[in-house]
Amino acid sequence: MSQNPASSTPRAVRRALLSVSDKTGVVDFGRELVARGVELLSTGGTYRLLQENGIAVTEVSAHTGFPEIMDGRVKTLHPKIHGGILGRRGQDDAVMAEHGIDPIDMVVVNLYPFERTVANPDCTLADAVENIDIGGPTMVRACAKNHDHTTIVVSADDYSRVLKDMASHNGGVSHKTRFDLAIKAFEHTAAYDAAIANYFGQRVGNGEADFPRTLSMQFTKKQSMRYGENPHQKAAFYVEGDSGVEGGSNGKEASIATATQLQGKALSFNNVADTDAALECVKSYTKPACVIVKHANPCGVAVVPDADGGIRKAYDLAFETDSESAFGGIIAFNRELDGDTAAAIVARQFVEVIIAPRISEAARDAVSSKANVRLLECGELPAKSGNGWDYKRVNGGLLVQSRDTGMIAADDLKVVTQRAPSERELHDLIFAWKVAKFVKSNAIVYAKNRQTVGVGAGQMSRVNSARIAAIKAEQAGLEVAGSVMASDAFFPFRDGLDNAAAVGITAVIQPGGSVRDEEVVAAANEAGIAMVFTGMRHFRH
Amino acid sequence: MSQNPASSTPRAVRRALLSVSDKTGVVDFGRELVARGVELLSTGGTYRLLQENGIAVTEVSAHTGFPEIMDGRVKTLHPKIHGGILGRRGQDDAVMAEHGIDPIDMVVVNLYPFERTVANPDCTLADAVENIDIGGPTMVRACAKNHDHTTIVVSADDYSRVLKDMASHNGGVSHKTRFDLAIKAFEHTAAYDAAIANYFGQRVGNGEADFPRTLSMQFTKKQSMRYGENPHQKAAFYVEGDSGVEGGSNGKEASIATATQLQGKALSFNNVADTDAALECVKSYTKPACVIVKHANPCGVAVVPDADGGIRKAYDLAFETDSESAFGGIIAFNRELDGDTAAAIVARQFVEVIIAPRISEAARDAVSSKANVRLLECGELPAKSGNGWDYKRVNGGLLVQSRDTGMIAADDLKVVTQRAPSERELHDLIFAWKVAKFVKSNAIVYAKNRQTVGVGAGQMSRVNSARIAAIKAEQAGLEVAGSVMASDAFFPFRDGLDNAAAVGITAVIQPGGSVRDEEVVAAANEAGIAMVFTGMRHFRH
Repeated sequence: MSQNPASSTPRAVRRALLSVSDKTGVVDFGRELVARGVELLSTGGTYRLLQENGIAVTEVSAHTGFPEIMDGRVKTLHPKIHGGILGRRGQDDAVMAEHGIDPIDMVVVNLYPFERTVANPDCTLADAVENIDIGGPTMVRACAKNHDHTTIVVSADDYSRVLKDMASHNGGVSHKTRFDLAIKAFEHTAAYDAAIANYFGQRVGNGEADFPRTLSMQFTKKQSMRYGENPHQKAAFYVEGDSGVEGGSNGKEASIATATQLQGKALSFNNVADTDAALECVKSYTKPACVIVKHANPCGVAVVPDADGGIRKAYDLAFETDSESAFGGIIAFNRELDGDTAAAIVARQFVEVIIAPRISEAARDAVSSKANVRLLECGELPAKSGNGWDYKRVNGGLLVQSRDTGMIAADDLKVVTQRAPSERELHDLIFAWKVAKFVKSNAIVYAKNRQTVGVGAGQMSRVNSARIAAIKAEQAGLEVAGSVMASDAFFPFRDGLDNAAAVGITAVIQPGGSVRDEEVVAAANEAGIAMVFTGMRHFRH
Repeated sequence: MSQNPASSTPRAVRRALLSVSDKTGVVDFGRELVARGVELLSTGGTYRLLQENGIAVTEVSAHTGFPEIMDGRVKTLHPKIHGGILGRRGQDDAVMAEHGIDPIDMVVVNLYPFERTVANPDCTLADAVENIDIGGPTMVRACAKNHDHTTIVVSADDYSRVLKDMASHNGGVSHKTRFDLAIKAFEHTAAYDAAIANYFGQRVGNGEADFPRTLSMQFTKKQSMRYGENPHQKAAFYVEGDSGVEGGSNGKEASIATATQLQGKALSFNNVADTDAALECVKSYTKPACVIVKHANPCGVAVVPDADGGIRKAYDLAFETDSESAFGGIIAFNRELDGDTAAAIVARQFVEVIIAPRISEAARDAVSSKANVRLLECGELPAKSGNGWDYKRVNGGLLVQSRDTGMIAADDLKVVTQRAPSERELHDLIFAWKVAKFVKSNAIVYAKNRQTVGVGAGQMSRVNSARIAAIKAEQAGLEVAGSVMASDAFFPFRDGLDNAAAVGITAVIQPGGSVRDEEVVAAANEAGIAMVFTGMRHFRH
């Protein structure tokens, strides 16, 4: 490694072995190598492709003098190959010569993503097993280990970089590039075996196919942060990679992870967490919507059809719910951010982050005067959130659960009171329910005309959450009377409804399922409140 | 695999290759294999050990006819070895015979944990590279792939199981065992390459040594759950394994992950999360303490020296803070749970989980009448929490930060008011500060005589958190006047102190650091409040 002065000199490439599942650019790369006087070895499909394109190449079996046997299971597992890769130049030269081992200075191998193999619904266990590559990872690992002397290339993305490096080092590859590519190689094999372990690990035990015996994950660093949730904690932000080990194509859903930052200070740990909450909440709405988040809770949400003002008006209403908390908040939209709305935000309040699927030119201009404001564009929001895994860290372990993608439509609701909600109430109930899903438990949300009137978050008792929602409404000068109420979990006692009636709530949405549901329904009926059950709880802690 | 009827029959073992870094039990295992007529192949230290113990064994180089070269870098990477492992019995027999390849039916290889190599402070990068095993993982992966025909053993823990399996299958190994061991093998190699990728990945880029370019993690399933945070979510609980990829020895710190359940229903997702919060909070105290958690927040905490009643009294006081929220809560102690305290709990309240370092026989008896109550023993609590990583999931990514292990002692506090806190106030301030660290932000904690008087959790504004703390105290019938107050982050304005003075708070602990600190201190001085700054914030979301 870097200790050894010799290793920091560029390493000449006399012989390269190419065997790739992803054939992108390999012909051109091979041609360039040959043009630089590199002798090529290859196998199987890569060999045929190179030959068809008139590129001089020797088959590995001809090089080793040992045939490909067992349908290719044993091709490269030979001392002439691995001695050629692993030999320490200047140290092992004599023994290599003695055994007729020619040095192999570069290995170009990439592995067919195992998770893509098993994603095919027709793939049997036997197919999956047959697709496990043994020779490929061995060459990758051997060449990465010996990167002091050799160059390992596991991605077509690196061909041009390698050629450029060779061009500027008289045909050799620099230590910096060799070291970087070696790390990439171990990242590649780690992800490969992780996918295999996860797939097979789902097939032992009591058949809980979703949860492998060991859970192997790999994330890719997107950003290092100045600090974590608090200044004395170190932090970084990782995203789902292309390895498919975690998330796979789900990683492509528009999210804080896919967002591009157009301006502003670097995102902090808490920015990322809060932006995620704001964006995931605003995704719930199909009509133009605005969500403001502070300390991981939505503190103001509103939905306004375009005819009535769209996101410009939605922002005003969301801000109105709790202008104090909105100070230093995170604001998310589900429509392109226009110049008017952007200008209104920066004129009115201190804001940490603004995120939207698209940011118009006018909006960029409007925000540019506030250089610190983080402006993020995340791309088109999906109609429906994808599956995936949610994690909760505990000391010494990890809780793993499927994402809470549960959604409720009007048809799913069960009216349990004498009075059914009016159409306006129904709209407000579903609106409030979607907010409650993103409010920390216990969550109580008061809403009217698709605007939050008061948000009661994070309490150990449901009655206190309701009390807070009322306090918030009072602080905002918003009238609770005539509002609807959403509760993320059932009311254990009738007092929740009695209190709601006392403040003028007209309709309630909640999961139902308490042993005292009858009393709770009776309380609603006594007050003329319309109540619907969702049958679905949304705890979020 | 299981599709193929032949594969489900036990597979005879005629020849085994043994090459282990962990020599535990390998001599006895080798002897047993020989006694069953198995021919042994081996290399290096394992070969010498077997030979010294008089066990018939052939060196791999003698078997292949190819010498060990390059200081052992190329020993087993030979067609006679890999053809012998990978050959499909009944299908490749002819080609094996043609090339003089003898079948190898069992591979016994374990890899020296890479993270143990690099944990040695004297380990250079060059040492780390030299310690990367190429031949070992290749044999492990090849044999695991061919588990339809062969048996891979990567852990000394499995020797007796394999011998038992052979004994009951006339010397063969059953498909069930072969399949299970094959999965274990891929888990082993995935963890091995993950450790390598993490280690080297810390050495690229801008030198942020803590955060590798790709983060590879592996957790081991401890329990599958009926559901997740909500019934429509699937869930499982994983713990840090012995692989060292994540957590390492930190995984051994007493925690919810190390706890043994003595009785009660299976732990739910929310149980695990809340028990973790309760246990980590109670660890903060050296004197006997009780923490009650509900919905991820401490709703009652008390510390009582043994002379004054110990945990029995601490439980009473913690319960008193918020008996409504304590209903269905999680209770943690930092001392052995005695019979009296256990009896008091189950007599007084519905409780989900009780956890303590040890559970006395009398306590077990006392709780046994309530069969649903989950009783957990976690082992001795550490004097100081270990390092480790905390994760926060966002859609498409993962926030990674160091655990919040920041602790404050009396000497760290900076008195910023004219009046310094009295000794009693100082004790209460530090007590309340430790509670605030575990309360969701914004957190305000009122405390007196090391008992929580009111806990204000999870609000988007600090003033509302204080208001909630006051409501809680009022609901509990506890007097706020004479209490101290802890705030997890600084007060942005003087109103926080003015409100505190109005309710009779006498001393305040907070990080400090607001641009308006001067006004905030002035407000405290005007009210005769003693205030200390910690210089450390404890946001927790």
